[in-house]
Amino acid sequence: MKMSTIVEDIKESPLFWPVRLGRNAVIILDETALPAKTVYIKAKDVKDAVKAIRQMKTRAFGQFLVVLNTFLLELNNAKGQPPEVLLSMLERAAERLEASRPTFPFGEVTSMCLGWARQAVKNGEDIISFVKRNIAGYMDAIRERRLDRVRRIADIIRDGDKVLTHCNVSGELAMAAWLCIRQGKLVHYFATETRPYMQGGRLTCWELKKMGADVTLVADNAVGSLMADGLVNKVIVGSDRCCADGDFANKIGTYQIAVLAKEFGIPFYALIQPSKKIPTADDIPVEIRPADELLRFAGKKIVRGNVDAFYPGFDVVPKSYLTGEAIEIEVGL
Amino acid sequence: MKMSTIVEDIKESPLFWPVRLGRNAVIILDETALPAKTVYIKAKDVKDAVKAIRQMKTRAFGQFLVVLNTFLLELNNAKGQPPEVLLSMLERAAERLEASRPTFPFGEVTSMCLGWARQAVKNGEDIISFVKRNIAGYMDAIRERRLDRVRRIADIIRDGDKVLTHCNVSGELAMAAWLCIRQGKLVHYFATETRPYMQGGRLTCWELKKMGADVTLVADNAVGSLMADGLVNKVIVGSDRCCADGDFANKIGTYQIAVLAKEFGIPFYALIQPSKKIPTADDIPVEIRPADELLRFAGKKIVRGNVDAFYPGFDVVPKSYLTGEAIEIEVGL
Repeated sequence: MKMSTIVEDIKESPLFWPVRLGRNAVIILDETALPAKTVYIKAKDVKDAVKAIRQMKTRAFGQFLVVLNTFLLELNNAKGQPPEVLLSMLERAAERLEASRPTFPFGEVTSMCLGWARQAVKNGEDIISFVKRNIAGYMDAIRERRLDRVRRIADIIRDGDKVLTHCNVSGELAMAAWLCIRQGKLVHYFATETRPYMQGGRLTCWELKKMGADVTLVADNAVGSLMADGLVNKVIVGSDRCCADGDFANKIGTYQIAVLAKEFGIPFYALIQPSKKIPTADDIPVEIRPADELLRFAGKKIVRGNVDAFYPGFDVVPKSYLTGEAIEIEVGL
Repeated sequence: MKMSTIVEDIKESPLFWPVRLGRNAVIILDETALPAKTVYIKAKDVKDAVKAIRQMKTRAFGQFLVVLNTFLLELNNAKGQPPEVLLSMLERAAERLEASRPTFPFGEVTSMCLGWARQAVKNGEDIISFVKRNIAGYMDAIRERRLDRVRRIADIIRDGDKVLTHCNVSGELAMAAWLCIRQGKLVHYFATETRPYMQGGRLTCWELKKMGADVTLVADNAVGSLMADGLVNKVIVGSDRCCADGDFANKIGTYQIAVLAKEFGIPFYALIQPSKKIPTADDIPVEIRPADELLRFAGKKIVRGNVDAFYPGFDVVPKSYLTGEAIEIEVGL
């Protein structure tokens, strides 16, 4: 498994592959501690893994890796068990991982892994080695496809561009920024804060800087103003889930940036991973996060009194707003 | 002067008239301490007044009152001075107040007061009493017009409405909400956080609650999602400065909400005070606030490294986005 390989031609961002398998635990980069501290959490079992996901210690693509590595961990822990026991262990793990957060397609990743396990039983193969081999091969393929997408993003970005991004694209945009610098392109990036988790201020600015890129942080409410003043000429965002028809879910705020980009004639690009299993936007459940995440900041209550807050974690952007390109990879879900 | 009268038929919000003249100082409600603490600042001279404005201790309509009351204070301090000295004192005060912040029309308010002083000199009247009488009469008139506007806002709001607001409308929306409750209308309000100063979370939620209204706080990046999901059917915002042609400046983020409202067919209303002296949007200087106000939160740095931030304080909304109504008052500027 080449999980932390430094590809020769692209400098890797720590957010590109933030989860790996340790000896007895899944090792997860704690993105809530970034950029102040680089801390790794050890998830020793499914419960720990679910907790890390729920508390958003890792997010976006990191969640994908947590599921796959938790399956690997479970398989390692299950040596010597009869197939029925092993299968039911994996089914229980899948069930708990699926229930961690609603919007990301956990169920599709777990189904794929369970499918391999059932196939092994059917074919009379050793479940552990068969599933491990498949997961490893799958991760390698995804890694290559993501690296390929980094190159495609870099191709889309032109000399002189002013690129706005929202939330955090798990390393891919920052790595494309690094490639652009190598290619001699002068590019400026704007990162939205992305309240309340502050992915923009904490993660995107940090990793773009690490890659040597020029980045300016703006409040989420400054996007319209930037566009009206001609300070942005491209928008590039990621996505957490994508329907078969091309509508896609991403961090709350993406929808309004897409509307604004269309209004101001600015091409809007999204990194998507379409799934055949989600026919339309109505089939994407949008997670509602606890009101307290908006009412508190760094642990301190910032709003007084009995005030209610509403914090949908994602919004679903209709494909018609994708006025740039769908920068797609096939993830086989 | 009826500066703190409780009008019988409308409960007054503390933000409606947040500044008044004390014995030897202008008394300013410190909006940066709200809602945790209700603290009043004493501005003993022009320097203190300018500092309070710059540090955004008061904002929006409060700034207007600071200018008028600082003139009253200067006049009180100038008893016995010859007209030339008095006039030059007022001119110096005007100059310093005008330089406090760029977007709010300080210059127009100071010009009006200086005009009265010059008129008194020309007519051989006592400057102090003439200007004081004019300022007092002017404030009374503005007060009545604002109260009248509160009634008009309440008329616009219908039973069952879901009203989104941005930043803080200096009491008027909250008082309209109080009237609506009296009128038996069931209304829900959404307040945007309004990063980075958090007027929505700190001021709007607080005063709407004080008036007995139902309010939900949302992140600035949730507006598109709320509208797409049909959770909002009216937008009402204030304005800091309005051109003769109807384009208006308001807190950064207003422009993008206006664009979104248009996209989703939601009527957009703005409280405006047009000025004949600003022909077009190009004549409104937009204040750029210090980057640190975005990079720090409650004094603590929230973004690490050498990251730049861009914080335009306002944006200028073209009149064409006013798909609801311009809820206008004449302020004679």
